[in-house]
Amino acid sequence: MTSAKKEFENVFAILTEDFLALANSRKLPQNAIEWIKKNMGHNVFGGKMNRGMSVVDSLQILKDGKASDDELFKARVLGWCVEWLQAFFLVADDIMDSSITRRGNPCWYKMEGVGTIAINDSFILESSIFFFLKKYFRKEEYYVDLLELFHEVTLDTEFGQLLDLITAPENNVDLNRFSMEKYKFIVLYKTAIYSFYLPVAMAMHMAGIKDELAFRKAREILLPLGEYFQIQDDYLDCFGDPVVIGKIGTDIEDNKCSWCINQALKMASPEQRKLLDKHYGKKNPEDVSIIKQIYKDLNLEGVYREYEENSYAFLTGLISQLDENVIKKDIFLEYMKKIYKRTK
Amino acid sequence: MTSAKKEFENVFAILTEDFLALANSRKLPQNAIEWIKKNMGHNVFGGKMNRGMSVVDSLQILKDGKASDDELFKARVLGWCVEWLQAFFLVADDIMDSSITRRGNPCWYKMEGVGTIAINDSFILESSIFFFLKKYFRKEEYYVDLLELFHEVTLDTEFGQLLDLITAPENNVDLNRFSMEKYKFIVLYKTAIYSFYLPVAMAMHMAGIKDELAFRKAREILLPLGEYFQIQDDYLDCFGDPVVIGKIGTDIEDNKCSWCINQALKMASPEQRKLLDKHYGKKNPEDVSIIKQIYKDLNLEGVYREYEENSYAFLTGLISQLDENVIKKDIFLEYMKKIYKRTK
Repeated sequence: MTSAKKEFENVFAILTEDFLALANSRKLPQNAIEWIKKNMGHNVFGGKMNRGMSVVDSLQILKDGKASDDELFKARVLGWCVEWLQAFFLVADDIMDSSITRRGNPCWYKMEGVGTIAINDSFILESSIFFFLKKYFRKEEYYVDLLELFHEVTLDTEFGQLLDLITAPENNVDLNRFSMEKYKFIVLYKTAIYSFYLPVAMAMHMAGIKDELAFRKAREILLPLGEYFQIQDDYLDCFGDPVVIGKIGTDIEDNKCSWCINQALKMASPEQRKLLDKHYGKKNPEDVSIIKQIYKDLNLEGVYREYEENSYAFLTGLISQLDENVIKKDIFLEYMKKIYKRTK
Repeated sequence: MTSAKKEFENVFAILTEDFLALANSRKLPQNAIEWIKKNMGHNVFGGKMNRGMSVVDSLQILKDGKASDDELFKARVLGWCVEWLQAFFLVADDIMDSSITRRGNPCWYKMEGVGTIAINDSFILESSIFFFLKKYFRKEEYYVDLLELFHEVTLDTEFGQLLDLITAPENNVDLNRFSMEKYKFIVLYKTAIYSFYLPVAMAMHMAGIKDELAFRKAREILLPLGEYFQIQDDYLDCFGDPVVIGKIGTDIEDNKCSWCINQALKMASPEQRKLLDKHYGKKNPEDVSIIKQIYKDLNLEGVYREYEENSYAFLTGLISQLDENVIKKDIFLEYMKKIYKRTK
């Protein structure tokens, strides 16, 4: 593990202790305190931490590598706030999706004795964020900006989740509800805004950026980048090497509104469409392999490669046109390096 | 219906339209917009609105009945924010408690096609609050106070809910987990803070009150008042007239950590305790009537009357000692009139 990552990880323990001290000050009994500790350990810690680390990396770029120790600590706190936000969403998403595992462990609601209490636990994860923001940022002039940013991004993500849930209900397959347009909406709101825009926007607030144009430009790049990231995820779920990506994809079985199925629906002949309708969203391996064969016949791999090239060219173009006085290109070039052509 | 109540009700439609306009501006598809509208209509509207109306009533008292139309409108918006907050909690609580009906209708998650999507719907209800606060209060100097107040009260309520859930899990009766101390904690955090302190504190912010002492004094009175309110609720669930209270109580069947059972546990003989252990939290009417007989034998009605008298005297005493220059007594006297000795 890099030392930057280690330093980031260390802040998790500080924040958890802060929160448990608050719960203690409220005189919560010991079993409730233990419960909260497990909730945070199980759900917030142990991810890839890319979103959280982005706040630190972006701040360093904005500050020409000269961020003070205090600033770096604060950026790490904000990074963890993004991780806490994600944990809030994932705990709840797993219940709504009837998922079984997450990051190689049982989902929180599947743990012994938890069940639907996980709903309230997800609320507590969300509320923690505002406790951390108050504790560490109350005196900063951008405090309200951070609060409003979290409120707005949270609501956008919930809009995305709503559309996802009513477009692809688990036990009711109807490909007529899918479309590339809806797919793009879901990806934008449910994933791209909180995963890509939020971390950079927070670093920008910390760096004292006030120019509305800078935030707009950051969005213009980060949202399509987030879309590409999710499309890549969807593609790898179906075409990636399970050994490399570390999990066996089940988007086809789970009736997911994925890039692959939406792309296939756009290109399918009437006969292929009939087969997609008949075999999509079924747990049976034979159904899955019929879908995969159609994806192959439609050359989804080739379509994906072309999409990837175009997306790369589009974003590289946008970044090259940026005015460095408005917002530094390096923030986005850093992202491009990490994300394009990844295999896991 | 009083005209004050009608005027309050009217603001619901305005806020719902505001929110749907936001969803529209985000280009959410029509079926998602319709979904949100139903969510708000089913879950926010149709309660007794006492909490929401309290903001308006308290502001009028603080302003000597001279609040402007704009101030009254704003107080109604804040009142609805409390109602929205309550809806957020209730939608989720009903899932966690496996409840069937709420306010005479099926619980939201029990509605056709909703199910666990209700979790995300509850999130959207919470997020709406911060959209309303931003829309109507962003320019007020007490804007941050309102945001922090909502964050803090929300977390406190979640703490209360957590303790309630791990103290009285639905399918695992163990009266050893109950105690009057835990009961009081749960009531304080889960109910009293958001139902009693929050509405008055918001009116105080609107009235420009800055004195920390005023908020502390308000808490000192409103929290015990909220405790009394909940104890009364618990008492009526068991001893009230179903025709008058409009529902048939099921706290005994549902293994609820109620005032009645905690009081009974304090007073029961070893034989009575055995019977409580054996018959509490069972759906069977014979079990319930054995519990009710013990409550009768222990004279819970008399204990309740005495508690009520003491609580009334205690709070009347606190109010009479208030310094009118710090905070007006009338706010609390108004509450006392509404709540003490109610039968429904």
